[in-house]
Amino acid sequence: MRLATLLGPDIVAAFDDPEALTDALREFRPEDIAEIMEDLSERDAVRLMSLIPLELGADVLEQLSPPRQELVVTSVDQLRAAELLVEMDPDDRVDLVQELDEEDAEPILQKLETLRPGAAEEARTLAMWSSDTAGGLMTTEYVSLEPDTKVWQAIEHVRAAARTGDVETIYSIYVCFSSQLVGVVSLRDLILVDPGHELRDVMEEKVVRVAPEDDQERVAELIARYDLTAIPVVHDRDGMLGVVTVDDVVDVVIEEATEDAQKMGGVVPLEDSYFQTGLVEFVWKRGAWLVLLFLGQLLTASVMQRNEDVMRQTVELVLFIPLIIASGGNAGSQSSTLIIRAMAVGEVRPRDWMRVFVRELGIGVALGIALGLIGFARAWFEGETVSGIGLGAAVGTSILAIVVLSTIVGSLLPMGIKRLGLDPAVSSTPFIASVVDVLGLIVYFAVAQLILTAFL
Amino acid sequence: MRLATLLGPDIVAAFDDPEALTDALREFRPEDIAEIMEDLSERDAVRLMSLIPLELGADVLEQLSPPRQELVVTSVDQLRAAELLVEMDPDDRVDLVQELDEEDAEPILQKLETLRPGAAEEARTLAMWSSDTAGGLMTTEYVSLEPDTKVWQAIEHVRAAARTGDVETIYSIYVCFSSQLVGVVSLRDLILVDPGHELRDVMEEKVVRVAPEDDQERVAELIARYDLTAIPVVHDRDGMLGVVTVDDVVDVVIEEATEDAQKMGGVVPLEDSYFQTGLVEFVWKRGAWLVLLFLGQLLTASVMQRNEDVMRQTVELVLFIPLIIASGGNAGSQSSTLIIRAMAVGEVRPRDWMRVFVRELGIGVALGIALGLIGFARAWFEGETVSGIGLGAAVGTSILAIVVLSTIVGSLLPMGIKRLGLDPAVSSTPFIASVVDVLGLIVYFAVAQLILTAFL
Repeated sequence: MRLATLLGPDIVAAFDDPEALTDALREFRPEDIAEIMEDLSERDAVRLMSLIPLELGADVLEQLSPPRQELVVTSVDQLRAAELLVEMDPDDRVDLVQELDEEDAEPILQKLETLRPGAAEEARTLAMWSSDTAGGLMTTEYVSLEPDTKVWQAIEHVRAAARTGDVETIYSIYVCFSSQLVGVVSLRDLILVDPGHELRDVMEEKVVRVAPEDDQERVAELIARYDLTAIPVVHDRDGMLGVVTVDDVVDVVIEEATEDAQKMGGVVPLEDSYFQTGLVEFVWKRGAWLVLLFLGQLLTASVMQRNEDVMRQTVELVLFIPLIIASGGNAGSQSSTLIIRAMAVGEVRPRDWMRVFVRELGIGVALGIALGLIGFARAWFEGETVSGIGLGAAVGTSILAIVVLSTIVGSLLPMGIKRLGLDPAVSSTPFIASVVDVLGLIVYFAVAQLILTAFL
Repeated sequence: MRLATLLGPDIVAAFDDPEALTDALREFRPEDIAEIMEDLSERDAVRLMSLIPLELGADVLEQLSPPRQELVVTSVDQLRAAELLVEMDPDDRVDLVQELDEEDAEPILQKLETLRPGAAEEARTLAMWSSDTAGGLMTTEYVSLEPDTKVWQAIEHVRAAARTGDVETIYSIYVCFSSQLVGVVSLRDLILVDPGHELRDVMEEKVVRVAPEDDQERVAELIARYDLTAIPVVHDRDGMLGVVTVDDVVDVVIEEATEDAQKMGGVVPLEDSYFQTGLVEFVWKRGAWLVLLFLGQLLTASVMQRNEDVMRQTVELVLFIPLIIASGGNAGSQSSTLIIRAMAVGEVRPRDWMRVFVRELGIGVALGIALGLIGFARAWFEGETVSGIGLGAAVGTSILAIVVLSTIVGSLLPMGIKRLGLDPAVSSTPFIASVVDVLGLIVYFAVAQLILTAFL
């Protein structure tokens, strides 16, 4: 049972005693208050926010979903909104400002500027980067020091920065010479070495870095690969702009997995969560693909039509059409899922296509024989206009051929799409299934005719 | 272009000058050397490992894939293997030992015990936990201090621990009273507060924790939710056992996404990467599902058989069978993908089924009308034994009915499976498509008969 389910009603009941409620809320983590607030009515959520002390309120605001953030910021008065924004991390602040309409954002940004000069300007600069890039994820609050800083001075500086709470991470200290990144020192190393050294003597010069326009997936990949707690964002190779921290990256990885899953399921990725997505957007994002696939699949009717004579001649063939094309679809979607995912985590590259082809051919033959034998046995009993063994052979051989073809199409098509520079996840399971349906019917009728001619 | 592709051949060429190669390797990050080593032949990989200084070698070993780890450890002599193991993080060491056969592992563990007393025992204890649980992910190297430790003593202790490199994280210091976890202090807070305080005065008592048997997905969820850099693993609520760090969790999230994708594609999740999975394992892990689905789909042949009279009477109906069941499959797999993923990230819970039902009903009707109209138009032209409008109405109405039915089955089935305590990802796209194929045929023949009776 979720916390929100348990506590939501109690909290609404406690509105009568605001002071006790404010005290009680101090005992909760901001993430948990945010969860409770998501489930409350709009009116209650705004009311609850007004009872939370400012700093805790900002932490809660950071954890809310975008629609709820917007609701809160536009419901409280503009000064309070600006005060909440001041307390937020700059990267979260920018994301929130980007969500707001122009007319809501401007007066709040002006109030923000009076509370903390430079903050509004910074928010406007950060807002330049799309939210799914390194620039969109980065914070500008990090510790940066000159190379000739002494280690003891650096520790003092870190201590001061931690005290004011003005930086998001103090575990990596970036060494910059006139705003150019020249090295990095971990807090771990800083407390380890002789305090009299200069940072230039103790810093690591090989700093893994990203450009602000780099995709968030790239950022996550590097952080995961090198087990970093933070990665600097630089322009023109060295110009220090900001830092992306690992906690944001965990969210990115989850978000990207969701996007990939949706693409592979044949849905244009959603911006918001399932329930927050409007019906019209939903119908559009699913309908676009569905209609496209449907139009492609109209071909199946044409293939059937061209083979009406065969079907009329041997009506038993018709019985196995759904079974046969489904085997192709299933085998093909297995292959595409495996390959798309293997490419996403870097295990397989488009240039490995020959190795993949050989493997899938082997697997396809093995699986095709297994399914083909079952199909043979089932069809055996249905022979009317042809002998049971003839029908069985036609169905069994078709299944073998279609399964082999599908594993190859299912694996090589995503690789080809990636090779073209497109996202292989768009070759979704429904897409592969549709391609394979058409191919499957063509193969079925061709193989059946060939074999039945021999048996008639 | 990957680093390994560029450098692999150069490195093999440099085997003639081992000293220069050893020097050159010092310039690389262990992650990059590991990548190069994955692509070398077995012989070259082992030879390269022998040229890498011990400590760097251990870091490289940690980054290798399990089969390559096994290769290296069983190819070098047992003493060297034990020396490498000593330098590894305990959680990585255990994973490696678990990979080895009993007869390979035992002599190495004995050598390990002489190098570092207690290490072999520890490895055996950690090996008790399955590798996809908190216990399997945790390290036993963390900083733990008593509550009456002074802050300055704690900093000294952290400094000493960092110097020997014996702990995996020094950013969280766990406060334990006779091995019971009572609080946590971040290094950030430690360098901030008055050095004369005791830890009990500055520690945070509300520590988010997990049990060793908790699933790795739960660990990742908590770390992501509370933006932690590490989470303690305790038994019986407080007994401190170890720590899971955020860098391991990034890997877990990626791994879980891969597993979910594979399940949703109708494949039993693989243990290893695509190319490292043996052909027999592959055929088995895909074949199990494929055969099961195939057996279920034999029902389509039976449904067709029961409706042979309808098909004989109105042969045009047959043309649209693949088209109609595919629309159901596609719409259903969209719904199931969206719901499975939304449940995985906690946006939708089984108790929300009524809200989901209402939404999917609305979306299904909208999508069904769109596809139904196209189907109607296409079928219009094919009327032979019945009027075009009659055939169009039969096909269009069937598509509408099947799309609506499929969105509902596709969304509610995964929720029902989750409600039963099973993993909803097993209601894979192929599974939903198979269920919907059978249902789709039944609906098609029922609707067609009803409508055509009116038009005949």
